[in-house]
Amino acid sequence: MAITILKGNIVSAPELGKLDVTEHGYLVAGDGIICGVFAQLPEQYAGAPVEDCGDALIVQSFADLHLHAPQYPMLGTGMDLQLLDWLNTYTFPTEARFADVDYARTIYRQLAAELISGGTTRVCMFSSLHTDATLVLMEELEKAGVTGYVGKVNMDRNAAPGVLEETTEESKAETLRWLEACGQFKYIKPMLTPRFTPSCTDELMAFLGKLSAEKKLPVQSHLSENQKEIAWVRELHPDCTQYWETYAKFGLWDDRTLMAHCVWSDARERKAMKDAGVTVVHCADSNVNVCSGAAPVRVMLDEGLKVALGSDIAGGDHLNMFDVVTSAIRTSKTVHVRDNWETPFLTVPEGWYLGTSAGAAYFGEKPGFAVGNPLHAIVLADDALPQPHPLTPAERLERCVYRRQKDAVRAVWSAGRKVYSAE
Amino acid sequence: MAITILKGNIVSAPELGKLDVTEHGYLVAGDGIICGVFAQLPEQYAGAPVEDCGDALIVQSFADLHLHAPQYPMLGTGMDLQLLDWLNTYTFPTEARFADVDYARTIYRQLAAELISGGTTRVCMFSSLHTDATLVLMEELEKAGVTGYVGKVNMDRNAAPGVLEETTEESKAETLRWLEACGQFKYIKPMLTPRFTPSCTDELMAFLGKLSAEKKLPVQSHLSENQKEIAWVRELHPDCTQYWETYAKFGLWDDRTLMAHCVWSDARERKAMKDAGVTVVHCADSNVNVCSGAAPVRVMLDEGLKVALGSDIAGGDHLNMFDVVTSAIRTSKTVHVRDNWETPFLTVPEGWYLGTSAGAAYFGEKPGFAVGNPLHAIVLADDALPQPHPLTPAERLERCVYRRQKDAVRAVWSAGRKVYSAE
Repeated sequence: MAITILKGNIVSAPELGKLDVTEHGYLVAGDGIICGVFAQLPEQYAGAPVEDCGDALIVQSFADLHLHAPQYPMLGTGMDLQLLDWLNTYTFPTEARFADVDYARTIYRQLAAELISGGTTRVCMFSSLHTDATLVLMEELEKAGVTGYVGKVNMDRNAAPGVLEETTEESKAETLRWLEACGQFKYIKPMLTPRFTPSCTDELMAFLGKLSAEKKLPVQSHLSENQKEIAWVRELHPDCTQYWETYAKFGLWDDRTLMAHCVWSDARERKAMKDAGVTVVHCADSNVNVCSGAAPVRVMLDEGLKVALGSDIAGGDHLNMFDVVTSAIRTSKTVHVRDNWETPFLTVPEGWYLGTSAGAAYFGEKPGFAVGNPLHAIVLADDALPQPHPLTPAERLERCVYRRQKDAVRAVWSAGRKVYSAE
Repeated sequence: MAITILKGNIVSAPELGKLDVTEHGYLVAGDGIICGVFAQLPEQYAGAPVEDCGDALIVQSFADLHLHAPQYPMLGTGMDLQLLDWLNTYTFPTEARFADVDYARTIYRQLAAELISGGTTRVCMFSSLHTDATLVLMEELEKAGVTGYVGKVNMDRNAAPGVLEETTEESKAETLRWLEACGQFKYIKPMLTPRFTPSCTDELMAFLGKLSAEKKLPVQSHLSENQKEIAWVRELHPDCTQYWETYAKFGLWDDRTLMAHCVWSDARERKAMKDAGVTVVHCADSNVNVCSGAAPVRVMLDEGLKVALGSDIAGGDHLNMFDVVTSAIRTSKTVHVRDNWETPFLTVPEGWYLGTSAGAAYFGEKPGFAVGNPLHAIVLADDALPQPHPLTPAERLERCVYRRQKDAVRAVWSAGRKVYSAE
């Protein structure tokens, strides 16, 4: 068995709001699977090579459960526009360029490298509607050491005519062609990805639901992001009382389903998510940028829903998950003020849990550096700022989060493999 | 006359919401004073050396009108605490360390360097109550090339006993000693700085008001940041209807006065600011972090108040003014949503204006790269990200703002002097 031993200040999030800290401890993995965190190295590992991270923090790596890979080139642009103008002026033309696989190769290689160097080792990601570019994306992620799911986007109505569109037949045929080619990947798996209800005909939705059941494929989409969208869905599906039912009625709604945003999900819709085991992907950066609103994350957590985080680039402006965690916290603080300082905001340990353990749970991991989890870890060397007094590991982690210290990432392990080193 | 010529894509903010763009243009200064922006170099400057910035953007540098220098070491820590706990656990002990001038020298040198490398060339800044450390701060800022005002803090009541306190007599005597020593500085000037009303006795406030009038010294303080603070001020000054009157009645309220926050300033208080010509310093990062609320910036602008921006470290978590501008914009977007999408959010050109021209106005500059202004400029090389299509200079600036691209700062001019170069 190949033993990996990391020595340093080990901080993990074993439950919402709690940090486990082992100063100058040992994180041990065998064949890439965590054997334990130890204050002293157990005798059985004596003699195995130790990667000494000195005074650095060793923390769980990030899971980014919602982002649009082909929007990477447009990060941070068009943010003064309304959603529809933003889609037409920036998003659709940008995504359309991924018909060109060479362009896709260049962009996706850079994207994969930025994910890994930022400590994001698990993703659930939207590609564009292009099958070949989607396969390029999966290849580049796999090569860089990212794990998770990618979806070729399906969108056969209300698209961008002449810019970005596919017919129902094309969408079905290309989805099948794409799925056949996915067998080559070990760490990146396919996920069905209807763009959102207004983008997909009933015929296509039914096809995807059937495919999901037959091939046991998970599903990702968008839900209740903004009020105009919700009204539009109501017009399109007068038979459905709520937005989520437009997914449920086609079999796209179970415990492996991811729904991004859920800003306006009321008690009934939240109950439907809880009952089905759907995971909410909270995308605070994006929800602020495109003025959607603030998802009721505290309520969702209190109700026992599964909530993870997503960067949602390029509605979100940063891939950096330190930023995404901070945005979730900061948005919760605006909700705290709005609610007359009554709804508790997300603490740093809570935000950290959402960006790490909660996302990892989607991939079947237990929270924290639990025994049996694949080793996903970041080494953080946060020594650039003066310190008023010796900081505890928890304070250092807090500072990395609020300061969004992507630059502190010195090494990254993904599914047991060392995939990045800053040296 | 010493001529400085910068060639590049010149973008400036001549009025709220507007950007002037001169692609491949020339920004010319004589003896550090701007002579103009030109599409072609006027003949009279032929032969003068040209600093060719290639395809980079040349933009105005930032003005940070509210920050606490001695809180620099605690950036990004304690952010889960309530204001009072945060002050007692982090802020007061951190500030107390500046009794040690050697410690002050180390920290303030780093602070000054970070300001300049981030493109902040004008500041109004709180020091601690320590006279000697305040002089060290002024020295280090001046050496690094920062311009503006610094204040020794006055706080003779409700302080932190045994940690950070001064008597009324000490506060007065030290203020006079400090002012006498300030003559040595050319670019950094003194500013009277009662910490806030609850920290200063009437006797001290009256002393400072008299001093301000006698020596024509400007004043900075805090106003209406949070509701408990406002209630406390009401208890302390039952004779005053509103918080601002506690400054006004002691002569600390005129057109050179800066008031940080003003989150809860109502129409009457805003009118008092407008009538007196007081400048509001909006500190969005800090107001979110310590859950104060969202200042009514759009209303203030519509009413014609002077509004500039401040990082307010360490309630704010970043010195980086790209971050501060983005925070102001993002906070305005949460207000936009809260107000049923009716109150317009700050556009990128508006946010940029507030972080540059509006702050510069406090120092007597006209907006934008106006003729007669001292040359304060940043060169931005924003070439790290892929671009979906050739971006306009305005789009590039937007991306630098939303992406908070401090790393794009390649060179900085302050009051006519080149004070930073990334090479």
